Amino acid sequence: MAELDFDKLAGLVPVVLQDHETREVLMVGFVDAAAWEATLDSGRVTLYRRTLGRVWVKGEEDGSYVHVHRATVDCDHDTVLLEVSADGDVCHEGGHTCFIEPVPLESR
Amino acid sequence: MAELDFDKLAGLVPVVLQDHETREVLMVGFVDAAAWEATLDSGRVTLYRRTLGRVWVKGEEDGSYVHVHRATVDCDHDTVLLEVSADGDVCHEGGHTCFIEPVPLESR
Repeated sequence: MAELDFDKLAGLVPVVLQDHETREVLMVGFVDAAAWEATLDSGRVTLYRRTLGRVWVKGEEDGSYVHVHRATVDCDHDTVLLEVSADGDVCHEGGHTCFIEPVPLESR
Repeated sequence: MAELDFDKLAGLVPVVLQDHETREVLMVGFVDAAAWEATLDSGRVTLYRRTLGRVWVKGEEDGSYVHVHRATVDCDHDTVLLEVSADGDVCHEGGHTCFIEPVPLESR
């Protein structure tokens, strides 16, 4: 298993989910060591969900699993990029991406 | 200024930098409230750098600034996506992206 540095953020490492076809960034979640191992073992995105306080297979409630096509760790081993495909909506509010609210850039 | 939820992660919010042309994911950093305001005001990526313990304009050492083309906040207001262009290398080790280490997927 690829070594991650879980010490920088109290046992968690941020994970970026990116659509492997469109390259759209879909969401950011976190893994602890167990969730990271489960993600690699199963090929299904498995996160540590802070609101639940436990490891959580993304899609476990409704079967909308998210499948890992490619995993890459950054230079500092403290962030993961997962290129994925999703069986359903990725955002818990519905929709493919969680990034839905444009922010005006004040200097432009 | 767009409201972010800085309470979930001890005053910090993760920021994903994505190349606005190639859509490559380049790095993940963090903003505190001051860095977020500076990013929006200046149009230059400004982060809270944990190793320095202070707000840091990305590229301030060597002029390799990173310019924000589009900013989007996620559904929970706890993550930011910045679509950017960079004047130089984004990774502090050299190279355009920090995501350089492929991880084998054990089930594939």
